[in-house]
Amino acid sequence: MSNKPKEEFYDIAIKESSDLIEEIKEHPFNVELINNTLDYEKFKIYLQQDFLYLVDCTRALLIIAAKVDDIEIMGSLVNVARGTFAVRKQYTEYFETCDLSDNHKKSKSCSAFTDFFMRAAYHNSVAEALAASYPCFNIYQIIINHMVGEVMPKKVEDHRYQGWIDIYNNTVMNATINQVTDVANNLYAKAGDCERKKMREFFKRGLELEIMFWDEMYSLA
Amino acid sequence: MSNKPKEEFYDIAIKESSDLIEEIKEHPFNVELINNTLDYEKFKIYLQQDFLYLVDCTRALLIIAAKVDDIEIMGSLVNVARGTFAVRKQYTEYFETCDLSDNHKKSKSCSAFTDFFMRAAYHNSVAEALAASYPCFNIYQIIINHMVGEVMPKKVEDHRYQGWIDIYNNTVMNATINQVTDVANNLYAKAGDCERKKMREFFKRGLELEIMFWDEMYSLA
Amino acid sequence: MSNKPKEEFYDIAIKESSDLIEEIKEHPFNVELINNTLDYEKFKIYLQQDFLYLVDCTRALLIIAAKVDDIEIMGSLVNVARGTFAVRKQYTEYFETCDLSDNHKKSKSCSAFTDFFMRAAYHNSVAEALAASYPCFNIYQIIINHMVGEVMPKKVEDHRYQGWIDIYNNTVMNATINQVTDVANNLYAKAGDCERKKMREFFKRGLELEIMFWDEMYSLA
Amino acid sequence: MSNKPKEEFYDIAIKESSDLIEEIKEHPFNVELINNTLDYEKFKIYLQQDFLYLVDCTRALLIIAAKVDDIEIMGSLVNVARGTFAVRKQYTEYFETCDLSDNHKKSKSCSAFTDFFMRAAYHNSVAEALAASYPCFNIYQIIINHMVGEVMPKKVEDHRYQGWIDIYNNTVMNATINQVTDVANNLYAKAGDCERKKMREFFKRGLELEIMFWDEMYSLA
Repeated sequence: MSNKPKEEFYDIAIKESSDLIEEIKEHPFNVELINNTLDYEKFKIYLQQDFLYLVDCTRALLIIAAKVDDIEIMGSLVNVARGTFAVRKQYTEYFETCDLSDNHKKSKSCSAFTDFFMRAAYHNSVAEALAASYPCFNIYQIIINHMVGEVMPKKVEDHRYQGWIDIYNNTVMNATINQVTDVANNLYAKAGDCERKKMREFFKRGLELEIMFWDEMYSLA
Repeated sequence: MSNKPKEEFYDIAIKESSDLIEEIKEHPFNVELINNTLDYEKFKIYLQQDFLYLVDCTRALLIIAAKVDDIEIMGSLVNVARGTFAVRKQYTEYFETCDLSDNHKKSKSCSAFTDFFMRAAYHNSVAEALAASYPCFNIYQIIINHMVGEVMPKKVEDHRYQGWIDIYNNTVMNATINQVTDVANNLYAKAGDCERKKMREFFKRGLELEIMFWDEMYSLA
Repeated sequence: MSNKPKEEFYDIAIKESSDLIEEIKEHPFNVELINNTLDYEKFKIYLQQDFLYLVDCTRALLIIAAKVDDIEIMGSLVNVARGTFAVRKQYTEYFETCDLSDNHKKSKSCSAFTDFFMRAAYHNSVAEALAASYPCFNIYQIIINHMVGEVMPKKVEDHRYQGWIDIYNNTVMNATINQVTDVANNLYAKAGDCERKKMREFFKRGLELEIMFWDEMYSLA
Repeated sequence: MSNKPKEEFYDIAIKESSDLIEEIKEHPFNVELINNTLDYEKFKIYLQQDFLYLVDCTRALLIIAAKVDDIEIMGSLVNVARGTFAVRKQYTEYFETCDLSDNHKKSKSCSAFTDFFMRAAYHNSVAEALAASYPCFNIYQIIINHMVGEVMPKKVEDHRYQGWIDIYNNTVMNATINQVTDVANNLYAKAGDCERKKMREFFKRGLELEIMFWDEMYSLA
């Protein structure tokens, strides 16, 4: 990505949040997940909450897609929304033993995160709203790339979380996330100064809320 | 459908609007379209406006899908929204000579219709909003079934509108529309009296606006 | 207003729609209303529909006020919304013989107009949404000033519509409308090119819909 | 209120959350505030955050007012929204030494609470959305009544927080809050079972978020 001009949203956002991203890479939840040492009870709670979170993430994308003027972007976001919703199905296939359903109560951090980007989807501009949801996509790509490439160079035998890793570590998912990145870059390029500032703030706030989410998941069970 | 209990939304709505539906079946725009006698200039204007209308219909469905509580229904409506959006592509493939783009100005009746169901999507309950959009789906199914089954029993040779008919007269489209009908029936069954009344009013109002749309399309060019 | 710089929204919008504004000034509904020759049945239907329209106009302002970032503007718009809603009360006081209630059905043109600016309030940016609602305020000020100043230089004796004229022809109402103008000018000054273009389009579209409203009111009864 | 039938929303909600309400009454922030022993730095941070919170509370009420069908309720909620917004002005008058402005960053708990009821305002039904905002009104009335009536029977000399207490402890504020209670009771009475359940859940969740707000305010500075 180093050849891209400096003003791309992706590059600016990542750079401004480099400390948060390091924190996420080194978060015990993520490190232990990739090392296959994560307590399975913690994982189950995480997966259950992520299940609920994916529904709201889909909702936010649908609202943003409904509002955006540009028809091409609208089409892209509808596809991304569909893909996001479909991950729930993959969860249920890979982890039949987990108690996945839509009737569970959201945890504090899950509520805080989803309320944040749902409010943005309804209340803010399309560009700002997408920036609020963007960490949901972007950070998984970063973590998975980091984990698979550096932390886990050799495939762990009988990795109990391999199914989860495979959901995110594949070309279709990568292409989907790149689509969101392209849309975010595109909207940032056309945004005015105030809107750009808010996009960057919302991205950072989203990352902070994701860290709180992992903190909570790690502390429960 | 005669075996269904009387309280299904579909049956009630069709019955209450039987006069409007007759008017639509006999509308010169539709009759001439199916007879292959419709002026091609009128058709081109219609197709251009319908192109714009499909975008807003997709938007309305996305908002409704984002708001609905029931996850199954949410999934259905995302699929329907995607299918609706895809019809635009089919239009451009079948009718390359038509000037189809998103930059045209909406006609009066196209604006009135789309503003109506867009307002409902944002402002009203999920059930009411779907009822406002429902004529968009339902009436094509009725017209096409009527036209293909009764008006046009023998295939017209070199029918210039065959491409348009084929878009709507196929099993995938039928299944999609049946999905919307199922959702509408489901929501009606769970709705209170006020909400039911409004659903029926919105359906009727949608049909009236569709008739105004055909009136205008027929009068232009 | 001639001292204002050319780029004020008010001046540009009025100039671009000068033909529509002339049409409105000369509209038989308005001319006969001011001359005290308007059929009272027509007036009653107008007042009933305007009653319904004022509720939606209030709704649109509330949504815009809820969305605007600037706290000063938010405060102004809440006041304007309250003033708009209060006009309904004045209608009931001045015209007790009219059948004013919220249960009447909206006419075609009333629906088209209110659906237009309600959609904009939910779907578009704050600046665009305000431009869509702006004709509601702006045009009464123009007509009343024109009518009272030029058409009706001498007070007509026993003018049956004097109560209606007095609602709009006073310093409080003028100050309220000037507040909306200030907000519209302010938002236009900060808007980008696309948003400015849409503001002007929405203002024009609003005026066209108002003319259709008077046309319909004049033709009914 | 003991004469009211059991099914009033107010009574049910208070009863179901009696443990939370006790916790709020005994919260050190509130106890020390009323005893005039609260650290002034804590109070200043609280007031600053409450200032930001009042803006969002106003926004939520405006959206709910815009959506509600019943015109009387709409009028009531517009008045309540205006009153809520006006409290900010009183804050600045009573506490000139506090750094009150809209440019401060929201704290974690302030964001979590405001995002919660803003999401509800846009996303949920009118009744559910009002239930989410209702703790904002209801709890101050309870605390102030409790504090002034029981905890602080004798007026403390030179109470540095008297200005704050006076804002909430007066007949106008009481009447406003009673108006919200009446609307909430009214909407609950008309709601179906699912909607009633959600209203009660949202009220409870709002109280929990308020407790987190006081916790945070007490821990800061």
